[in-house]
Amino acid sequence: MSLIKLSAVEEKEMVPGFWGRFVHTDNVTLVYWRVESGAALPEHAHRHEQITNLITGDFELTVAGQVIKMGKGEVVTIAPHVSHAGKAISDCYLIDVFYPAREDYR
Amino acid sequence: MSLIKLSAVEEKEMVPGFWGRFVHTDNVTLVYWRVESGAALPEHAHRHEQITNLITGDFELTVAGQVIKMGKGEVVTIAPHVSHAGKAISDCYLIDVFYPAREDYR
Repeated sequence: MSLIKLSAVEEKEMVPGFWGRFVHTDNVTLVYWRVESGAALPEHAHRHEQITNLITGDFELTVAGQVIKMGKGEVVTIAPHVSHAGKAISDCYLIDVFYPAREDYR
Repeated sequence: MSLIKLSAVEEKEMVPGFWGRFVHTDNVTLVYWRVESGAALPEHAHRHEQITNLITGDFELTVAGQVIKMGKGEVVTIAPHVSHAGKAISDCYLIDVFYPAREDYR
């Protein structure tokens, strides 16, 4: 068992305007993203299943070419190897869940 | 890819005062819990790894007999088969992540 205070986890700017805090277990990685309005994540894909949870703000996710306007309390599931990109329409707080764990982020 | 509006997902009262919305993928289950102040989840264990995310409120989690007072923005990881129980100190919003998926909740 681990208790993690997110405020004590180092925040890393992974691309401009995307500030992430990372929690890894044996099986999954959770990323807590503070995203600045207007910041954009370029199109990419990975072998990990992803579940994106928009906690606050407005976010535009493009998955396999389909544009999805996400609002607070919306969730998008992305299958492995499917291309996706994102853009913050306002300041946002997002939680991404990845399976398996993101060894590239440890 | 699926876009899920949580407000459109049926909310189920799993134990008194614990109202959950469920999202399942092939590998993980996410549960979005609206918990009423004072509600208590009895001690239990399961084979699934669990990550509990407290989004708002104050929640007391007891893991393997250890009492953890969680505040907003805190995260607790619980290994498979470890006993745990919970009590809402105030109204709370929690997101639990389970691996593997909770077939018992589908």
